[in-house]
Amino acid sequence: MAKDDQIPFEAALLASTGPIEALLRRLLDDRPLSGEIARPQRLMEAMRHGVLNGGKRLRPFLVMESAALFSADGEAALRVAAALECVHCYSLIHDDLPAMDDDDLRRGQPTVHKAFDEATAILAGDALLALAFDIIADEATMLPAERRAALVLALARAAGAGGMVGGQMLDLEAERIQPEEAGIIRLQAMKTGALIRFACEAGAIVAGAPAADRERLAEFGSAIGLAFQLADDLLDLTADARQMGKATGKDAAAGKATLVALHGANWARNQLQGLVDQAHALLCPYGEDAVLLKQAAEFVAARNS
Amino acid sequence: MAKDDQIPFEAALLASTGPIEALLRRLLDDRPLSGEIARPQRLMEAMRHGVLNGGKRLRPFLVMESAALFSADGEAALRVAAALECVHCYSLIHDDLPAMDDDDLRRGQPTVHKAFDEATAILAGDALLALAFDIIADEATMLPAERRAALVLALARAAGAGGMVGGQMLDLEAERIQPEEAGIIRLQAMKTGALIRFACEAGAIVAGAPAADRERLAEFGSAIGLAFQLADDLLDLTADARQMGKATGKDAAAGKATLVALHGANWARNQLQGLVDQAHALLCPYGEDAVLLKQAAEFVAARNS
Repeated sequence: MAKDDQIPFEAALLASTGPIEALLRRLLDDRPLSGEIARPQRLMEAMRHGVLNGGKRLRPFLVMESAALFSADGEAALRVAAALECVHCYSLIHDDLPAMDDDDLRRGQPTVHKAFDEATAILAGDALLALAFDIIADEATMLPAERRAALVLALARAAGAGGMVGGQMLDLEAERIQPEEAGIIRLQAMKTGALIRFACEAGAIVAGAPAADRERLAEFGSAIGLAFQLADDLLDLTADARQMGKATGKDAAAGKATLVALHGANWARNQLQGLVDQAHALLCPYGEDAVLLKQAAEFVAARNS
Repeated sequence: MAKDDQIPFEAALLASTGPIEALLRRLLDDRPLSGEIARPQRLMEAMRHGVLNGGKRLRPFLVMESAALFSADGEAALRVAAALECVHCYSLIHDDLPAMDDDDLRRGQPTVHKAFDEATAILAGDALLALAFDIIADEATMLPAERRAALVLALARAAGAGGMVGGQMLDLEAERIQPEEAGIIRLQAMKTGALIRFACEAGAIVAGAPAADRERLAEFGSAIGLAFQLADDLLDLTADARQMGKATGKDAAAGKATLVALHGANWARNQLQGLVDQAHALLCPYGEDAVLLKQAAEFVAARNS
């Protein structure tokens, strides 16, 4: 399954994408579900363009591995993972819009508003957000209703004004109002941290794990969410566009404050190691079962694309 | 409570807005909820601008009256009504964007992207959509988890690619591809019909009413949803901007096909009467308890603003 030059974790991540890609493709089919009137073709094409784009599917992987830690039902976890990926992809579609980050490329392909148009991109994002809650609430996600409702609530809160969307708002404002260190940390915990935290917490909710485990997994998610953003900021400073498949050096050009800009690359690399250690410590109670999640923490901190 | 020149139904509708306004104001407070990190002030102001704008709150009224038909818990119905209004208001914010209908005025006030900016308007809409599912899924909506999950599913499906968002997509395309009569009816059933249908169905779900009642209320919602759009098209043809608080005659100017344009105003008035009769017939089993819902059907068909 793995190419020879891949480390084992990357091979595991790649191997995990098969089922999630298949499910996303099925969920984004043109045929309407019960209670739907019709699925306009152009809208569905735009949604598929924004979702079925060769993403690494890191968040789905985190949902599924966290759920596996508690021997949860794999099919239910897979649907929650797909819902989360819909939210992640909607946020990229909207963030790329001219009124926001104004990006033409995403993974080397035209962004949705470039491949279609702005109105279609806005609507495709809106529809993906609604679809995420549809997927979780549906009885096809074979979980007790209490867990489906808890997952809807946690995802809505992670994605909304007090989470991801609020973080994007703060990020846009950061170009005008330079935030202090605490402000940058809060912005990042919201913009990218909240969904990664949810990914890890969701596995515990799917499994009906005790509250203490749910909190432990959420904290693990927060730690690797912070690491994810630090690695991203480091990369923005050092990588070229070819490596990223999107424009780079944009933060500095926009005068955006990042922790890396504030403290330098060496500090950032030390911080990353500290976050990986913290993430590993949180997983101690799960022993060998958590080996892939531990590797995920290292992968997030060391990633170069 | 009623002004002297108001008909009784309008007085009842107006009287019903007090609790919903108060709840919406509380839900859109600056203070973060548990699980939220912070609520950025500018984002919350934009959300409040888009929601607390003197709307008639017809959809919340329909939720609450439908729920009352089955003696459902009023507080739970009120929260579902607020969630639905968040979805309705998000859709107006996004529809008004320059890339979509490009409207500067809504109820005589600047639209959100005019009062703030495009990026903030996109994010305010996104956050309102997430908030809607947050409100319903929350245990504070004192309903069994089965009903909360069913409400999330029905709302997501009504709002998504196979409902409202898909309808807006078809509406944008209708400027280029003139749809046939069947296409116009489908477009309208999705764009405005789906949420009004949900409003009426939601009351039955909140109450845990039998499936036959749920279906009956949904059909009632579909009938008045069609009437709502017909009345809107009539109004667009005949009213002036002062009366509407927004630009009028835009459909004709954009060359948009409507049933009124296709068949004329007299045909439309006959159709409206037929839809009201149909709506009334659907409510027959509920006798006197449904008097306000029957009046709502007449109000929707006869409205002039």
